[in-house]
Amino acid sequence: MGVTFSDIRAAAKRIQPHAHRTPVLTCASLDRMVGARLFLKCENFQKVGAFKFRGACNAVFSLMEDEARRGVVAHSSGNHAQALALAARLRGIHAYIVMPSNAPAIKKAGVVGYGGEITFCEPTLEARETTTNRIIAQTGATLVHPYNDARVIAGQGTAALELLEEVPDLDLVMTPVGGGGLLSGTALATRALNPSIRIIAAEPEMADDACRSLAAGHIIPSVNPMTIADGLLTSLGELTFPIIREYVEQIVTVSEAAIFQGMRTVWERAKIIIEPSAAVPIGALLEKKVDFSGLRIGVILSGGNVDLNSLPWLE
Amino acid sequence: MGVTFSDIRAAAKRIQPHAHRTPVLTCASLDRMVGARLFLKCENFQKVGAFKFRGACNAVFSLMEDEARRGVVAHSSGNHAQALALAARLRGIHAYIVMPSNAPAIKKAGVVGYGGEITFCEPTLEARETTTNRIIAQTGATLVHPYNDARVIAGQGTAALELLEEVPDLDLVMTPVGGGGLLSGTALATRALNPSIRIIAAEPEMADDACRSLAAGHIIPSVNPMTIADGLLTSLGELTFPIIREYVEQIVTVSEAAIFQGMRTVWERAKIIIEPSAAVPIGALLEKKVDFSGLRIGVILSGGNVDLNSLPWLE
Repeated sequence: MGVTFSDIRAAAKRIQPHAHRTPVLTCASLDRMVGARLFLKCENFQKVGAFKFRGACNAVFSLMEDEARRGVVAHSSGNHAQALALAARLRGIHAYIVMPSNAPAIKKAGVVGYGGEITFCEPTLEARETTTNRIIAQTGATLVHPYNDARVIAGQGTAALELLEEVPDLDLVMTPVGGGGLLSGTALATRALNPSIRIIAAEPEMADDACRSLAAGHIIPSVNPMTIADGLLTSLGELTFPIIREYVEQIVTVSEAAIFQGMRTVWERAKIIIEPSAAVPIGALLEKKVDFSGLRIGVILSGGNVDLNSLPWLE
Repeated sequence: MGVTFSDIRAAAKRIQPHAHRTPVLTCASLDRMVGARLFLKCENFQKVGAFKFRGACNAVFSLMEDEARRGVVAHSSGNHAQALALAARLRGIHAYIVMPSNAPAIKKAGVVGYGGEITFCEPTLEARETTTNRIIAQTGATLVHPYNDARVIAGQGTAALELLEEVPDLDLVMTPVGGGGLLSGTALATRALNPSIRIIAAEPEMADDACRSLAAGHIIPSVNPMTIADGLLTSLGELTFPIIREYVEQIVTVSEAAIFQGMRTVWERAKIIIEPSAAVPIGALLEKKVDFSGLRIGVILSGGNVDLNSLPWLE
């Protein structure tokens, strides 16, 4: 089941009453450091602090009334869990979130704060899937996968749609890549609106499965990745991989040091809070992983959820 | 020499090629906490990271050509020093900055980075004034006071002018108050554009000289104030005080704890970096120092210059 540009257009209309149309900011001193003109699409200002709300919201509001009444379910301890909880609350339905018992307190509190119902399980993939399947069997809830879901991919594509409506004449669009939901949605929207715009993604060196998957021509799973960019630990999915393979020019890898530096530089120069995952493309730009000079570059800043009690440069 | 609304209009035109028109952001979760609708005028995104650039830029570009050739001078180790250095560089003239020898390295580096020429002096008021006067005598440079200067006040008023152009139907405008340049410029612009909009300022309890000055009916100098809001240590000036007395409804005082909380809340909820001085009105809003409920409130976030190596809540 492929995702098309008209799915993204429909998603934009569907989520418009609920999601923020986030601003596009520029920063002259960041531009000078990179040698290019950056247009920062601020999904750190999106509801729940991340682009994930777009996909979750589109999925929840795509459900038929009788499906919706039985609720939605996901296993996640990240931004997707909070996004799904909030989207469900806005539709007035249940969100069942399966989380490992050792998830950080701040993530549990986030889901509960948005009205999600947490079921804890052992911190193994098997326990997570068993628990999720049990909830589906008991409640009839609809599974909303964080990225390998056409409704989610279409929702994530709405960020690029808005960006290109506001700044049509870009040379290049960049996103981070984890499971590929944001990247594949961005690629579909960008290619449909202007096929001459290049699409480049960035991922941590320490979690470079997407880069290796592209090179190999098939999905190589991510095995125990260790990176500060905790939104990018997942592997590509069967829906996202073919879209990425078709439209994405290149996936560049970024060192942990460059991710730290990218995050800190955006905080200091652009005065906005971004999370490590959002800093990965900035790290690639600062390290000039590609010849970016003189280009007009749209960068989707994926999120801004950080624990202000433990900043990476103060550890 | 009074400042009028037409001075602010002229300043807006004069600085327009050089200053950023900063965005006005909203934040639903902050609104819920305060019980009002906030419109955040983001001067933390202004050049040099603070509204101070507006006043300095207006002063520098107001100079006649022969005055300008002799340069400008200020004694300051704060945002005004950097703002004046950058404005001078943009006009291609010298900025002489007098700084105490014990000023933090980060502030010295800031001024040098913008092309200012620092003259160090002993950390006393007398040494500062002597040194400044010597530079004026030697170079013929024009003194640009950080707030007690009509050109500076008019420049600072352009932030409120932009805010009200974008969101005309406000009930209330809030700023922090130190020397009163931002507050008096804001008051003049607001009163001229819509006399029904209330104007309330906020200052630290630990530096409450403006509040006491209003109560006394004359300027009471600030003596050794100790507050984290290091942009608000100065006393009102002879130009700013009468404007404030005429137009400002109230100056509320804010505890250090509420300033910390305001700063952290904006970082966490609005995902933008503000400095402690900018957090003072937010602290007043969170503590409901006035009955703000249901109001549409414009808040000028004065700046975003913080040392990311020492965050107040991690000390």
